[in-house]
Amino acid sequence: MRYPNGKPYTPASTTETAGNKSPEYARRGMTLEEDLNQSNKYYLNHGVAVIHKKPTPIQIVDVHYPKRSAAKITEAYFKQPSTTDYNGVYRGHYIDFEAKETRNAASFPMKNLHAHQLLHMEEIQRHGGLAFVLIRFTASQQTFLLDATHVLHFQANLDTYKRKSMPLPYIEEHGQIIAMGFAPRIDYLKAVDHYYFSHL
Amino acid sequence: MRYPNGKPYTPASTTETAGNKSPEYARRGMTLEEDLNQSNKYYLNHGVAVIHKKPTPIQIVDVHYPKRSAAKITEAYFKQPSTTDYNGVYRGHYIDFEAKETRNAASFPMKNLHAHQLLHMEEIQRHGGLAFVLIRFTASQQTFLLDATHVLHFQANLDTYKRKSMPLPYIEEHGQIIAMGFAPRIDYLKAVDHYYFSHL
Repeated sequence: MRYPNGKPYTPASTTETAGNKSPEYARRGMTLEEDLNQSNKYYLNHGVAVIHKKPTPIQIVDVHYPKRSAAKITEAYFKQPSTTDYNGVYRGHYIDFEAKETRNAASFPMKNLHAHQLLHMEEIQRHGGLAFVLIRFTASQQTFLLDATHVLHFQANLDTYKRKSMPLPYIEEHGQIIAMGFAPRIDYLKAVDHYYFSHL
Repeated sequence: MRYPNGKPYTPASTTETAGNKSPEYARRGMTLEEDLNQSNKYYLNHGVAVIHKKPTPIQIVDVHYPKRSAAKITEAYFKQPSTTDYNGVYRGHYIDFEAKETRNAASFPMKNLHAHQLLHMEEIQRHGGLAFVLIRFTASQQTFLLDATHVLHFQANLDTYKRKSMPLPYIEEHGQIIAMGFAPRIDYLKAVDHYYFSHL
């Protein structure tokens, strides 16, 4: 099953149980989304933050109501998300981000971010929220936090950069690498602390 | 079409166009959800705030991939939401709320709020976010903003109050009534200003 953007669909059930797997097994072929769901659950259960992934937007066309059983959706289609996938509250701040994986070894294709998602991140910053993108390079298993400012700057200067993919050095220079662990599997809020709050 | 909680389902399309109707027509039989979608769109377009309704959580069971056309979901079911329906950022603050309508004239049945939604609102407050419930009495068309603190207090003292419905006077005493208009149709952020920021 695939999202409109071609990203493989992960059933909620899989994601729900991801956190219960042994570390050895868990680390094998875990997607960034699974790592984030496990980490967000960890943050919630440990009183660190309240951050959730938004449900996949779906256009419902037809629903049946069988007697003595749950309503069954029989025709529906994936809709293009108009916001980012994750948001919540951390240390009194509104947090909003998109998480993307790329198989590219040395750059992140900007086409992975929709125009309305970039606009959304710009709006979030204008209203005092923290907006960023989590980018994972699946080949090296390196994951970076990149503040929306740098994503928007690159997007606004594609002609100057003469390319539609953010080079890894640009991400390394302006972003914050995220340590991988077991609990939480991906401690991206530590990167948030370092990037946004280290001056406090 | 109905949610698990029996609330009628409003197709996104209807909601999307709700804002374009004439005020006279628009005011006829508009649900609280439609009023909020129009108002949130107004807030977004006027740079007031970025607040969105979360998509309805759905458990996807089967999807077909017809050639040369969009992926079609052929079996799916409504899931119980684990958070509130609306969240976003306003004046640098994380905003989180649930919106409910009741046909009752003089009280709001607490069963309209799920245990995990109450817990969610409690967590939000603990992390410095603003959490509240918007309650509309459809008979009188009165809509109130009630901070989560008072919702949680009533829930925690059901035995004392000897009832499972919040009486209108309790809501009037602790809540903030919201003026209805045309643009935005329901200016609940004015109520937020008055309730949370009037001391500033």
